[in-house]
Amino acid sequence: MKFKMAMIGGGLGSFIGPVHLMAARMDNMVELTAGVFSSDPEISRRSGLEYGLTEQRVYSSWQNMIESESRLPDHERPDFVCIATPNHLHYEPVLASIRAGFHVLCDKPLCLTVKEAHEIHNALVKHDKLFCITHNYTGYPMVKKAREMVGKGELGMIRRVVVEYLQGWLSEKEEEKGNKQAEWRADPAKAGIAGCMGDIGTHAFQLSEYITNSKVIKLYSQLNIFVEGRRLDDDGNVILNFEDGIRGILSASQVALGEENSFSIRIYGSKGSLSWRQMEPNSLLVRWKDRPFQVYRTGAGSESAGETAYKHSRLPAGHPEGFIEAFANLYRNFALHLKAYREGKPQNATYDYPGIEDGIRGMQFLEAVVRSSKEKRWAEI
Amino acid sequence: MKFKMAMIGGGLGSFIGPVHLMAARMDNMVELTAGVFSSDPEISRRSGLEYGLTEQRVYSSWQNMIESESRLPDHERPDFVCIATPNHLHYEPVLASIRAGFHVLCDKPLCLTVKEAHEIHNALVKHDKLFCITHNYTGYPMVKKAREMVGKGELGMIRRVVVEYLQGWLSEKEEEKGNKQAEWRADPAKAGIAGCMGDIGTHAFQLSEYITNSKVIKLYSQLNIFVEGRRLDDDGNVILNFEDGIRGILSASQVALGEENSFSIRIYGSKGSLSWRQMEPNSLLVRWKDRPFQVYRTGAGSESAGETAYKHSRLPAGHPEGFIEAFANLYRNFALHLKAYREGKPQNATYDYPGIEDGIRGMQFLEAVVRSSKEKRWAEI
Amino acid sequence: MKFKMAMIGGGLGSFIGPVHLMAARMDNMVELTAGVFSSDPEISRRSGLEYGLTEQRVYSSWQNMIESESRLPDHERPDFVCIATPNHLHYEPVLASIRAGFHVLCDKPLCLTVKEAHEIHNALVKHDKLFCITHNYTGYPMVKKAREMVGKGELGMIRRVVVEYLQGWLSEKEEEKGNKQAEWRADPAKAGIAGCMGDIGTHAFQLSEYITNSKVIKLYSQLNIFVEGRRLDDDGNVILNFEDGIRGILSASQVALGEENSFSIRIYGSKGSLSWRQMEPNSLLVRWKDRPFQVYRTGAGSESAGETAYKHSRLPAGHPEGFIEAFANLYRNFALHLKAYREGKPQNATYDYPGIEDGIRGMQFLEAVVRSSKEKRWAEI
Amino acid sequence: MKFKMAMIGGGLGSFIGPVHLMAARMDNMVELTAGVFSSDPEISRRSGLEYGLTEQRVYSSWQNMIESESRLPDHERPDFVCIATPNHLHYEPVLASIRAGFHVLCDKPLCLTVKEAHEIHNALVKHDKLFCITHNYTGYPMVKKAREMVGKGELGMIRRVVVEYLQGWLSEKEEEKGNKQAEWRADPAKAGIAGCMGDIGTHAFQLSEYITNSKVIKLYSQLNIFVEGRRLDDDGNVILNFEDGIRGILSASQVALGEENSFSIRIYGSKGSLSWRQMEPNSLLVRWKDRPFQVYRTGAGSESAGETAYKHSRLPAGHPEGFIEAFANLYRNFALHLKAYREGKPQNATYDYPGIEDGIRGMQFLEAVVRSSKEKRWAEI
Repeated sequence: MKFKMAMIGGGLGSFIGPVHLMAARMDNMVELTAGVFSSDPEISRRSGLEYGLTEQRVYSSWQNMIESESRLPDHERPDFVCIATPNHLHYEPVLASIRAGFHVLCDKPLCLTVKEAHEIHNALVKHDKLFCITHNYTGYPMVKKAREMVGKGELGMIRRVVVEYLQGWLSEKEEEKGNKQAEWRADPAKAGIAGCMGDIGTHAFQLSEYITNSKVIKLYSQLNIFVEGRRLDDDGNVILNFEDGIRGILSASQVALGEENSFSIRIYGSKGSLSWRQMEPNSLLVRWKDRPFQVYRTGAGSESAGETAYKHSRLPAGHPEGFIEAFANLYRNFALHLKAYREGKPQNATYDYPGIEDGIRGMQFLEAVVRSSKEKRWAEI
Repeated sequence: MKFKMAMIGGGLGSFIGPVHLMAARMDNMVELTAGVFSSDPEISRRSGLEYGLTEQRVYSSWQNMIESESRLPDHERPDFVCIATPNHLHYEPVLASIRAGFHVLCDKPLCLTVKEAHEIHNALVKHDKLFCITHNYTGYPMVKKAREMVGKGELGMIRRVVVEYLQGWLSEKEEEKGNKQAEWRADPAKAGIAGCMGDIGTHAFQLSEYITNSKVIKLYSQLNIFVEGRRLDDDGNVILNFEDGIRGILSASQVALGEENSFSIRIYGSKGSLSWRQMEPNSLLVRWKDRPFQVYRTGAGSESAGETAYKHSRLPAGHPEGFIEAFANLYRNFALHLKAYREGKPQNATYDYPGIEDGIRGMQFLEAVVRSSKEKRWAEI
Repeated sequence: MKFKMAMIGGGLGSFIGPVHLMAARMDNMVELTAGVFSSDPEISRRSGLEYGLTEQRVYSSWQNMIESESRLPDHERPDFVCIATPNHLHYEPVLASIRAGFHVLCDKPLCLTVKEAHEIHNALVKHDKLFCITHNYTGYPMVKKAREMVGKGELGMIRRVVVEYLQGWLSEKEEEKGNKQAEWRADPAKAGIAGCMGDIGTHAFQLSEYITNSKVIKLYSQLNIFVEGRRLDDDGNVILNFEDGIRGILSASQVALGEENSFSIRIYGSKGSLSWRQMEPNSLLVRWKDRPFQVYRTGAGSESAGETAYKHSRLPAGHPEGFIEAFANLYRNFALHLKAYREGKPQNATYDYPGIEDGIRGMQFLEAVVRSSKEKRWAEI
Repeated sequence: MKFKMAMIGGGLGSFIGPVHLMAARMDNMVELTAGVFSSDPEISRRSGLEYGLTEQRVYSSWQNMIESESRLPDHERPDFVCIATPNHLHYEPVLASIRAGFHVLCDKPLCLTVKEAHEIHNALVKHDKLFCITHNYTGYPMVKKAREMVGKGELGMIRRVVVEYLQGWLSEKEEEKGNKQAEWRADPAKAGIAGCMGDIGTHAFQLSEYITNSKVIKLYSQLNIFVEGRRLDDDGNVILNFEDGIRGILSASQVALGEENSFSIRIYGSKGSLSWRQMEPNSLLVRWKDRPFQVYRTGAGSESAGETAYKHSRLPAGHPEGFIEAFANLYRNFALHLKAYREGKPQNATYDYPGIEDGIRGMQFLEAVVRSSKEKRWAEI
């Protein structure tokens, strides 16, 4: 069974567009059938052709697309809309898509305010639609394993969380050098109230809640702007307090020169601890008291890392799986849920993916992190 | 431009079938349009449907497929045949495909004897067809970088090569436990004259010649069988002598318990050395005299690792690319050559892929390595 | 030239006593000639004999020792006193030693309050004595290299500092299981106002100031107690603001189960960054924009890591040097300064070691970090 | 109890002299009391003074030293002689020392021929003297652990051994640039029949037999000379066949540019495998079928890595121990044996050290490896 996808954003020259398409194609459960890929009609058209669409299914505005596509007969109509636009172009197309009867898969952060996030939530409930937000790092097999271990209590009571997301690509003023990726991210009108925290801090926040299965209740942050003239944070440190007494630290930076995409998390419990690093994603280091350390590995077979991890890998151990495969796991799991939905069955919990709750939490995190830094006091969340 | 592929082998349950399809889909330049996926017609049928074919394009014998598909009009006819069968089922379908006018992409090792290899070569020349052999590890960006550095003389005169390919999955008699992958690999009638050396030793051999751009002229080997009752080598060590005085060692094992897919190569020259490990494929360690070591990274941008490496990556640095992406580079480069061929242009040298020469070398290596081990003397190659 | 050392504390069964002695012996510039090793006279006696002293030079109280030893003729008299006692037993013996005319080498943290620290400082000035505090991690060759690189501006303007010191050995209530090391560290009367922050947080703080050559001006902290009933912090996170706009984060924990002695620092500047990890101390990773990463290595020769690093290593590259060798560098450099002092020469800046200023800063850090956590506001320092 | 050592060789400017002395001093069980440190009397004198001797105990020939020191009264007489000279100066002083009634600790390789080795053995038996050969890498705690695991059968039947010792410091003709270390190693009159194989290949050979507790019975080698004009091998590869069907490969090179002191061993058995690398000596990676990998760590406590490893470490886990500490373990264990010998007790098996058998095996290995390479056939050993 293959699901039809209409896409908004992600045209030629973008980073995330090709990622979505490679991920969507990987497991052959999703096919692109329509799209509007740029606000520039010509770029949109060329992107669509390059992506394998015929000209009639390429649009020059998302409004047109939603309107036209929603009128198609069932067997031609997209099953869901993929939204891969800058942050300020999430809220409206998401809502319009839902209201037009489409399921939605949308990039993070969800929108610009908590209020918008709740409206999206309400629309989903009202129209009974499925929603996936691309906190793609949860798609890694070893992240699944980590969450599972914490959930089963293998590490005991969780105490300390250290989550870091460091990049260096905005160490200079790329937004004034013609770098499209940098331009909108540095513009408050397009990125929202936060820069680095919105772009990557939300991933870090979400991963920490995902693996611990615990909620942050308050935080203290200091956001920084290191590149002169920049209007949004390009760096920040946040002290996190979770439910159940878990304490943590979240660091995010896009001016950590030399760091590529260094996203990592460490969780310390009363019986053991774990460490996972996105740049070497196929290993999960687990450490115990008075026992040798252990390394779980992607694909090593269900005897080792367990069923859930195994079901999110495609290759035998030692055949490295990477970013695209993890991203594809979101698509695969969303497609499996679409299938279950269509068949009137419940979602299979093994094949989870981040949803609207994660989207709302992300917006709450951003509002709290900006407020705390500004007011120099703890912010509840 | 998208090329049509007909596939032989690689049905549900195989390892390599899905790899081929994920790799083929990744860059959207190849689509599966026909296939025979198993000698069991029912498995073939189910595989084809699962892979997105209609029943009429799924066949129950490769002979039928080649015959039927070759009669299709140009716009429906496959451009090339992908052969993903066990070793003993390469020679005939490759030859038949070439003679029917198809280009061919085939798994390694090429066939069962040097003689067969030369016949395939002759057929390709006679019919002017393109040929790719899936020495997929050459598709990694850092392997391209390594070859480029050696080629430019950055390491000086090459002296020592250490190439290792160690796996542990055949540490026990998997071939008698219902493991299909193991069964044919352990059977001389299907695997050929060599076991481990044919399956993974050929990769190691090919990579050493690819990166050094030098040919092995003689070798001394000791092949081992550690699991009792096994008829083909499951392990071996080979001393290699290349042209130009390069000396090296090749180790391969499938009983190195604990090793997953540990393929690595180190090249030592008079000015510097390099080290690459398949399981952490996005780094290339380069070491110099009296200067700090250097680490080149996939995707770090053309300023760092250079154009050739950059053109074989899809993501910014730090977004790990893995086995499937490297495999996809063979498909992409083969498709680019198909495109050039169709347009009457020469192949773009940047987008190289392993071809018939590599296939022939592999068979020569296997015959030499088996002969040397048996006769306990150096074998020329 | 060999210097005579009298020792207070560090008897049999302690961790730090043998470390001091192994470090002192390594370069043959210091010899133990007297000592009081425990408040228990019998343990003191047995330790002294084991450490190679004759009974008459082993004392049962530090007061007696200082009194007796200070009356010895010049050629027998100790040159300096080494103080390796729990924190509450630093202040008095340090002052008494100085006043009796001895130079002093003392464990960290310096004492219990900033006020005491200043008094020690004043005594040193008044009596013209040399002082070394065992922030031993500054003794590693790659730490010297890091400081040198920052000092020369190779990384540009420093922006972000991430310093972590994580241990797991106090994950359970070791202080009630007969562990002497844990007992005094958990007791406010002996450890002072801070637990984990005093024991290891001060190392992290000192290293961050040492490498950046910049001072922390304010901080925001949250100290945590995870093990029930414990009276002092066993964990904490601190946001650091340095002079010159440098922002950073300091994390310390002794309940990070699975961590051994995981002390690391990363420094990000506008032109490059560096990363050093105590547990693999012989490598310094340096990363640049648009150039491959570099790895400097201990002992690789002056051409590579430079003179200062080279002069703090004893072996060719690849012969790992560790904790004791780094500790010994403090002793060696302190001895070289004693020699220069005796000869009326100035200290050779290449052979630096942490001194009284580091001790005062440590106490200021502890008072600030405790105050900030308690009052939930930024503390100046 | 402290043992008195007389030393031959190892003067100022040598690598190994200071290593011996640092190792000897570390545990305070050995003290240098006499020596002849160079064939140049003035260098010998200056070295002796620098090493803390009085002039009367520094000699200008080893013959004089042995004669004079052997006449000293028991309480002044050295307990053993340490021989740290180039290879050709082992045989005679070792024999003379034994005959004069001294125990001996000697650098490797033992001497120049198997015949000499047997004579030394006979002398030791005849005079009932103890002997240690500095195969210092066996002193690492994780090497002890590795041997113990193999011995207990934890890895099952051993199948494959991969041992490598790669250095790059002789990539150019250092022996003609005034490098003393290189000069004698490149001179057959001083180094013996082998260059690289004698200097580091013997370490690799000895470690492989030590950990597997199995003997090599035959080998096939190719020795190489890469630097023009050099008379002894600077590189080589050796296929090893052990008793019990174990097969292996030994590689050694001193022209592997970029390698520092890259000594590593991997052992593969029917139930598990282990991997140890000298440059990160405090970890031992152990891998199993269907279970996560494990990492044993130096110092982690007897609960984790076991008693034998624990008794060869001095610090808590995470405080890196290195080359000197491992070397010191030989001195410590030899001193413990001297103590037992003096007390008429048997050696404690936990505190083993390499002895005369290892020395003989080393010479047998060298003769076999040179013969095989020359005659291009398997050599028994």
